Amino acid sequence: MSGNTFGELFKLTTFGESHGAGLGGVVDGCPAGISLDESIIQRELDRRRPGQGGPSATSRNEPDQVRLLSGVFEGKTTGTPIGFYVENTNQRSHDYSKIKDVFRPGHADFTYNAKYGFRDYRGGGRASGRETVSRVAGGAIAQELLRTEGISIYAYTVELGGIPAKVTDFEGAQDRPFFSPDPDVIDKWMAHVEEVKSEEDTLGGVVEVRATCLPAGLGEPVFGKFDARLAHALMSVGAVKGVEIGSGMAAARSRGSQNNDPIGKDGFLSNNAGGILGGISSGQDVVARAYIKPIPSILQEQQTVTTRGEETFIMVGGRHDISAIPRINPVLKAMLALTVADLLLLDRRLGVRD
Amino acid sequence: MSGNTFGELFKLTTFGESHGAGLGGVVDGCPAGISLDESIIQRELDRRRPGQGGPSATSRNEPDQVRLLSGVFEGKTTGTPIGFYVENTNQRSHDYSKIKDVFRPGHADFTYNAKYGFRDYRGGGRASGRETVSRVAGGAIAQELLRTEGISIYAYTVELGGIPAKVTDFEGAQDRPFFSPDPDVIDKWMAHVEEVKSEEDTLGGVVEVRATCLPAGLGEPVFGKFDARLAHALMSVGAVKGVEIGSGMAAARSRGSQNNDPIGKDGFLSNNAGGILGGISSGQDVVARAYIKPIPSILQEQQTVTTRGEETFIMVGGRHDISAIPRINPVLKAMLALTVADLLLLDRRLGVRD
Amino acid sequence: MSGNTFGELFKLTTFGESHGAGLGGVVDGCPAGISLDESIIQRELDRRRPGQGGPSATSRNEPDQVRLLSGVFEGKTTGTPIGFYVENTNQRSHDYSKIKDVFRPGHADFTYNAKYGFRDYRGGGRASGRETVSRVAGGAIAQELLRTEGISIYAYTVELGGIPAKVTDFEGAQDRPFFSPDPDVIDKWMAHVEEVKSEEDTLGGVVEVRATCLPAGLGEPVFGKFDARLAHALMSVGAVKGVEIGSGMAAARSRGSQNNDPIGKDGFLSNNAGGILGGISSGQDVVARAYIKPIPSILQEQQTVTTRGEETFIMVGGRHDISAIPRINPVLKAMLALTVADLLLLDRRLGVRD
Amino acid sequence: MSGNTFGELFKLTTFGESHGAGLGGVVDGCPAGISLDESIIQRELDRRRPGQGGPSATSRNEPDQVRLLSGVFEGKTTGTPIGFYVENTNQRSHDYSKIKDVFRPGHADFTYNAKYGFRDYRGGGRASGRETVSRVAGGAIAQELLRTEGISIYAYTVELGGIPAKVTDFEGAQDRPFFSPDPDVIDKWMAHVEEVKSEEDTLGGVVEVRATCLPAGLGEPVFGKFDARLAHALMSVGAVKGVEIGSGMAAARSRGSQNNDPIGKDGFLSNNAGGILGGISSGQDVVARAYIKPIPSILQEQQTVTTRGEETFIMVGGRHDISAIPRINPVLKAMLALTVADLLLLDRRLGVRD
Repeated sequence: MSGNTFGELFKLTTFGESHGAGLGGVVDGCPAGISLDESIIQRELDRRRPGQGGPSATSRNEPDQVRLLSGVFEGKTTGTPIGFYVENTNQRSHDYSKIKDVFRPGHADFTYNAKYGFRDYRGGGRASGRETVSRVAGGAIAQELLRTEGISIYAYTVELGGIPAKVTDFEGAQDRPFFSPDPDVIDKWMAHVEEVKSEEDTLGGVVEVRATCLPAGLGEPVFGKFDARLAHALMSVGAVKGVEIGSGMAAARSRGSQNNDPIGKDGFLSNNAGGILGGISSGQDVVARAYIKPIPSILQEQQTVTTRGEETFIMVGGRHDISAIPRINPVLKAMLALTVADLLLLDRRLGVRD
Repeated sequence: MSGNTFGELFKLTTFGESHGAGLGGVVDGCPAGISLDESIIQRELDRRRPGQGGPSATSRNEPDQVRLLSGVFEGKTTGTPIGFYVENTNQRSHDYSKIKDVFRPGHADFTYNAKYGFRDYRGGGRASGRETVSRVAGGAIAQELLRTEGISIYAYTVELGGIPAKVTDFEGAQDRPFFSPDPDVIDKWMAHVEEVKSEEDTLGGVVEVRATCLPAGLGEPVFGKFDARLAHALMSVGAVKGVEIGSGMAAARSRGSQNNDPIGKDGFLSNNAGGILGGISSGQDVVARAYIKPIPSILQEQQTVTTRGEETFIMVGGRHDISAIPRINPVLKAMLALTVADLLLLDRRLGVRD
Repeated sequence: MSGNTFGELFKLTTFGESHGAGLGGVVDGCPAGISLDESIIQRELDRRRPGQGGPSATSRNEPDQVRLLSGVFEGKTTGTPIGFYVENTNQRSHDYSKIKDVFRPGHADFTYNAKYGFRDYRGGGRASGRETVSRVAGGAIAQELLRTEGISIYAYTVELGGIPAKVTDFEGAQDRPFFSPDPDVIDKWMAHVEEVKSEEDTLGGVVEVRATCLPAGLGEPVFGKFDARLAHALMSVGAVKGVEIGSGMAAARSRGSQNNDPIGKDGFLSNNAGGILGGISSGQDVVARAYIKPIPSILQEQQTVTTRGEETFIMVGGRHDISAIPRINPVLKAMLALTVADLLLLDRRLGVRD
Repeated sequence: MSGNTFGELFKLTTFGESHGAGLGGVVDGCPAGISLDESIIQRELDRRRPGQGGPSATSRNEPDQVRLLSGVFEGKTTGTPIGFYVENTNQRSHDYSKIKDVFRPGHADFTYNAKYGFRDYRGGGRASGRETVSRVAGGAIAQELLRTEGISIYAYTVELGGIPAKVTDFEGAQDRPFFSPDPDVIDKWMAHVEEVKSEEDTLGGVVEVRATCLPAGLGEPVFGKFDARLAHALMSVGAVKGVEIGSGMAAARSRGSQNNDPIGKDGFLSNNAGGILGGISSGQDVVARAYIKPIPSILQEQQTVTTRGEETFIMVGGRHDISAIPRINPVLKAMLALTVADLLLLDRRLGVRD
């Protein structure tokens, strides 16, 4: 497998499987002198833990304690690579025979087998949501760098199971169930999750990510556009099936006269562009939305085949979430942070803003 | 600027501005022994020319004659880098004073100024649609490689100005106005384009891209996922504001029991996944959609500011399209071809399928 | 710091400092199905341990126990990234005040300060020889991949303190003091080391690396030449100040008629090229030599300055080697193995030899 | 072929063969606002032309006129990729049958055949010295960037055919035959070249490259070391078989007490390190030497085989140099300039020195 490194200058390389010894990574390229300790990373990891943000979460409960292995001295980054590690502490050894030789619909079992000839059959392995632990840890480090530039990163749920939220308070979302930007929608979402749970089914939704207070000029034109990198970053998260920037899909149904953002002497008068023009940040908030598919593991019989191609049925039981939301939110937040950190360092090389 | 190279092993590096000497590129990493000549590339370039695919096209009419500069000997690629060049032949020198010191709404003028301190004010420069000439040329070379593996690439319009098409014949779309997969929608689209043109406005739409007959196993998990790379590839095209894979946005509003693709002994029974599971191709068609914003240059007065921050109004007249569709279709097709060619070579290294 | 990843397709990313928690790395891109366990890596790590290969070694004695964290299942690589970690067990906390504010001559103290503004003053940090633990572990994994292709990698000492060895048996060198290819030179080297030790000084030397049984065709022309990558790989090891391929320096003093390698029907009749022509392997042994500077830490007073620029003298005592040889040999062997593994995968993508 | 791009942030991608349409390249990552025009590049190209620097040069005489295709507007770089092109004007179509099916000793014919299955048999193709035209053009652009930082780059001959020069005036070398830093050695070299020419043989030598006035702090530790990148850069030039930094090979035969560079309050008191410690520039001159093999094309019969493996003899006649020196000097100068430009931009990202 290649593809386990993200970023050109602020690089995160990750490793680890759902049922292996643990998960970890290396952040290479972080400037020296940034304040960092384990508690800063732990705080972000705790946000993706089950139980955070409402009842849609699994009962599997890892402490996910992170350990810093290098790159920090006397509370500051030294400029050397930052290694970190999270032990897998909650792998109840149980019987895998049910999934060992059967492809779970909606999972990567079939394609991993096709690519590598066999797979770690104890679970999702590298394709499991567990992999995102390393993204969240790396994103926490990126956010510390961005903090020194006054840049903030947010991720909040704008739709769950087709029920939309109003974005009335995205700053406060972090402390609400489902990371909701709208206090009033929470009960509706709770009720809907319970209903779907009782039907032994799962739900998708939409998460919006936002970067505020970033300078104009971030992003590299053509193939290195800010929006292209961000689409890559968000779509690289397992459950994401669609990404839009600013007015996004709606732009395809509007007119030029409606979709253009006029400019006044105090700046842009609207933000249909989502803060990016020609692949470069305009100084407005960068806003994107990720469309999340429902979790494929459901408590219902599904038609599939064995690794030998025999038809069969499988019910993937066990400790599973009803929706990737809200545990996916800190992951998407991390991906935006990693994208902005990388573009910030890429831009600095031009020596323009330093 | 960095970001002018796409791909890890099948690499396209491009250069050129709308009003410079010309545009070109280098394809590095193409295996030796692939049949290639200028006519193969020219055929794709001709597909993005004005007038191809209906009346939404500009009157600006470049011949766009490509010249191969290296990497081909006796009609076959030699394995050395393939250089190509297209002269800009149609730059009427005219008065740029109107746009020299004014930021066009919806254009990259403002952000290029912010990033580089100044810009080539004669037009979009590197941010112009002209840049895509090099993508189409590179994509044509990628398609020749894919042809040797039996893989075909398509791009066709599934919606224009809010009017959807039925995907009844995507193979035939290439020879229809608007690259339409639906013969019956063409007249409606024609009429709509004329109407919007008369209102001096512009239109967006949706283009679907598809790869057929590709092997299972293409794509690298985690950050190198097939769908993540494809989202990057499509979103890197100027006018694209959203990308979805398979059921895409709709997946966010469906249930796990609906969205999972069951597997029968002859293969998958549906393709909500868009041919990609866990970032790796399943052997089904890979299907994605790009959401295209309306062209920002309209024949209407728009509020903006000068480079000195003074409020003003601008009307961007001249030879402009009503919609990026259909000229953008060969570009999106090229981006899919480049993505698949790169993943094919990345996968070969594993020595699995060779 | 960037630069902690080596390779394009077979990628090693490393982290860790001499006096931090430990050292480790991630190998990304190793194909699935290669036999691997901790004992295979441990065997190589043990070869760089003090005491291995004669008395030139330090008295500092780390067990350097490696732990595999991911990427291996049931004794075989899965194709996912291989994480590994070696705890630092032997950091006697002692008084660093002597070196905290003083630049040690021949060390990286001055340049790290210049680049990062400050440094981990407890030792060499990232510039310490300890860093090479991760290279040796990564190289051990590369050698397992090469083994499946029948390729072998060697590193042996051809000169120590100006005393040359005859290359009579490079296969056996691994089990001799100083990794000597010449049984007869060992006593001379032992005596010379003791003499220099008594003079409280240190020694340099020359190590030859060799790859046997590799296919013709490895290497990418122009900037990606086999010899260019190998020079990079070897020169990236701290103590190396010169690299030569094949006849190397001597070629600069010979004639074309002497230096060309004639070709007979059974292959090349000599190997002045060192197994590489035009940056591509010819199928002969690839042979290169690394020139090693004497260890800068000596038990003598040396003139230097403090971090505040005041003149002073320093004597760097402590547990130090007399020569980087032989502990550097397994490191150079690892760098050749990593280079060949990467080129092997790069070449496979062409689908020529698979 | 991959490997046609050099650099991480200041990237040169090249294309072209000796007997194709022409040679060119793209510089991606050059900051905006650098003064540049064709004459600046042409001046460097002219320095690698035959006849420059004494009688060792071939009679083949290309004008090598460079044309800038993009990236420059009103005499300054815009930050967009800089495309350039040099037409091949002097390809006398002549009979290639003699070399078409025979491998020339010391050339890349055999290895290109092994890798790609066939080759452009009209000459060295991509492995020809012609390829370096693009390096020199790219290096000229790098030198313009470095000039804005006060950094100067030099390349001068320190040995030819075993006859050493004294480095008495490296600044003046550029205007002397053989780019000699020593006026007194020129006649000896002239005579030696004539003698070897009369013997229908060829010569090697040694070229020293030097960067002056660069800041301390350039270079990335571990695999990204300044000296490792420079060794890669120099060894990637066809005729180079060895590279040393500072005292280089001699360091392997000296003691720590001799090789360490003491530091006084006005800086380092010697420069055995060659201006690089721990892979990072110290602020002293960066000094390296490249060892050049004799040109393999000689007017003598040499033993070889045909592409079908039959034994034969070949005499490679035609318009060939006696030595790669001095035409290789501007190429090595370009490689040092490209290396420093890349490290300069890499270092800027840290925001330390800006």
